[in-house]
Amino acid sequence: MITDLQNILSTNIKGMKRSAIRELLKFLGQPGLISFSGGFPSPLSFPIEELKSIIAEVMENEAAFALQYGTTEGDDLLRTMLANRYKANGIDVTKDNIIITTASQQALDLISKMFIDPGDDVIVGLPSYLGALQAFGSYGANMIGIPMDDEGEDPNLMEEALKDLASKGKKPKFIYLIPDFQNPTGITMSERRRKEMLELAHKYDVLILEDSPYRELRYEGETQRTLYELDGTGQVVILGTFSKIFCPGFRIGWVVGNPDVLDKIVVGKQATDLCTPPFTQRIAARYMEKGYLDPKIEDIKKMYSVKQKVMLESLEKYMPEEMKWTHPQGGLFLMVTGPEDLDTNALLLECIKEANVAYVAGNSFFCNGKGYNTMRLNFSYESIETNIEGCKRLGSFFKKVLQK
Amino acid sequence: MITDLQNILSTNIKGMKRSAIRELLKFLGQPGLISFSGGFPSPLSFPIEELKSIIAEVMENEAAFALQYGTTEGDDLLRTMLANRYKANGIDVTKDNIIITTASQQALDLISKMFIDPGDDVIVGLPSYLGALQAFGSYGANMIGIPMDDEGEDPNLMEEALKDLASKGKKPKFIYLIPDFQNPTGITMSERRRKEMLELAHKYDVLILEDSPYRELRYEGETQRTLYELDGTGQVVILGTFSKIFCPGFRIGWVVGNPDVLDKIVVGKQATDLCTPPFTQRIAARYMEKGYLDPKIEDIKKMYSVKQKVMLESLEKYMPEEMKWTHPQGGLFLMVTGPEDLDTNALLLECIKEANVAYVAGNSFFCNGKGYNTMRLNFSYESIETNIEGCKRLGSFFKKVLQK
Repeated sequence: MITDLQNILSTNIKGMKRSAIRELLKFLGQPGLISFSGGFPSPLSFPIEELKSIIAEVMENEAAFALQYGTTEGDDLLRTMLANRYKANGIDVTKDNIIITTASQQALDLISKMFIDPGDDVIVGLPSYLGALQAFGSYGANMIGIPMDDEGEDPNLMEEALKDLASKGKKPKFIYLIPDFQNPTGITMSERRRKEMLELAHKYDVLILEDSPYRELRYEGETQRTLYELDGTGQVVILGTFSKIFCPGFRIGWVVGNPDVLDKIVVGKQATDLCTPPFTQRIAARYMEKGYLDPKIEDIKKMYSVKQKVMLESLEKYMPEEMKWTHPQGGLFLMVTGPEDLDTNALLLECIKEANVAYVAGNSFFCNGKGYNTMRLNFSYESIETNIEGCKRLGSFFKKVLQK
Repeated sequence: MITDLQNILSTNIKGMKRSAIRELLKFLGQPGLISFSGGFPSPLSFPIEELKSIIAEVMENEAAFALQYGTTEGDDLLRTMLANRYKANGIDVTKDNIIITTASQQALDLISKMFIDPGDDVIVGLPSYLGALQAFGSYGANMIGIPMDDEGEDPNLMEEALKDLASKGKKPKFIYLIPDFQNPTGITMSERRRKEMLELAHKYDVLILEDSPYRELRYEGETQRTLYELDGTGQVVILGTFSKIFCPGFRIGWVVGNPDVLDKIVVGKQATDLCTPPFTQRIAARYMEKGYLDPKIEDIKKMYSVKQKVMLESLEKYMPEEMKWTHPQGGLFLMVTGPEDLDTNALLLECIKEANVAYVAGNSFFCNGKGYNTMRLNFSYESIETNIEGCKRLGSFFKKVLQK
């Protein structure tokens, strides 16, 4: 073995840590552990029977195509199906506005590769999705976190940040937003706030990255128009994924945007993995073509809305009154906030060992290194009964902690 | 749309071009086009019938697992199967020495991310695999090309390069080699040369990246031991892939190496795509478990050895005598060299339009911007008859060109 492995690592990788969430996966095997940690969909949401017949058809009719290399842009049929679906929802795109990625995490990586030189600024929510922070960080981005209220990122603080950068002759490479059922807070951006964000993006000539993995999973309230639609000028890029509405095991995501932007992403993707698996892409395309996706999403919404309701009720019942939490209208997560001096990071292992419940310590989502008194809970993965039991255990655990 | 897209791109992406090979894929739809260009396996090599039954079993018995998120390291069963297969071939590894990647292109990307800061040196063959040059280049590597003879990279020139760097207080981040049926030349490194490379790697304390996508496809001569085995000290990292011996459409590759190196790759992969599709990984694991892989490789070798023989005979018959080519003992490619002033780059479109044959202009494989008089031909994709017809057309085309 070479003698100086640690020394010859790239600057960016030296600064990277293993994902707290991915590392938690190791505990998932622990007997009786209740996991509120990952962003796992319920296995009961997977369309296993539909897939059986579709896969058999693909293997019968087009195996030689599906098992071969594909184009870097992605399966044309899948891109067309996605474009048609956006069009049906009032978003005017064709397949040329869409490329397929190896789930949306790869889109985050490729967009980082495309824009970020070490030290470049990027604006994110405070808090925001850990995987995005990791992707941006892996290219040396300087992240500027904008605190959120219950309508989304604060527009005044956003403008302050943009003005401050402009005063130094700089602008951020992009603004990263998750307008629908944000990860980790579950907060949905109001239409007014969406328009304010777009005004700022236009005023300061900045691209917006609209990450929308949970958008389809609304359990109550009115659907908000996407930033992409409200903008209409090509200044917004949407990231989509099948991971929460179909299955994560296929690793299929996509980017919707201006062809000029997509073209550069494709160049980066050629060097990164050549193409997303044509096999899973073709199965997904046929699945959409047969019209299975939309009824399935309705099923999933029914399933998760009950789980969410039960979790909210259980938290109300079992959590100490010093703790508060968000009340999302959809998605997979909610965020709990405790007293200022609570440290969910320090308590996590104890909670897993004593209460046999896992959460994600909120600190991971705060690019400013704060948020120690918060935690993210997922309600999609465990069964209703287990969600109740988990909240009960979590409540007892934190009651004991706060009494000390 | 923002006004200055070109200006705000990262330094690395500004320097990247679309892959010549990936772009050629666009012509594959042209009627009657004979493609010697891609590194496509024959669709007849895909184990469609075996896969039908395995996929049905996976969907019946373990769909909820295969459709869910997986660990970043990869499917444990697949890693175990791969480790067992290496062990059976005399290479002493366990699953802890193996991680799964989204085909070996991703391994090249992740290893680049792990080691390369802009301006860092990397040693490659002259010529070498275009996708590797792109991956290294996408992180700003400075590539030092070492000319090859018929035993592989020249050890004297290699030592000169290492000495020269050392005299400047530098060393390369790694030496990238494809010892078996190299891409694009088809050349296999002799055992003597392998040992010389390892001596240099030890003397100068440099990691070797042993890319081995074609290793299993030997049609004549004796199998050489891997650099990994000859080394035995953990200074070599192997990149493997199913793309040429199973199917590329699953996008499954792997890295074999010292756990310290793998650990850093995993950290990078978490931010890049979270995990390789668990669905295709589990199918591949069951395929190996049932013992299908090795007999299939024997079938593929029989199929391709005939194709290679036919291409060599046809080139002999049809090509102008000013042109020479390599005579590989395996793999998917051979390299043709013409007179010094030939420019295969400039002639490619003409060749596609007039002769309806596509090759890859050799220039793409030379990190020093040379090699204009070379081209790479693939013999695995087209049928035997088409290979003959393609060589005939290619021969007429170049005879005409050289007579001018």
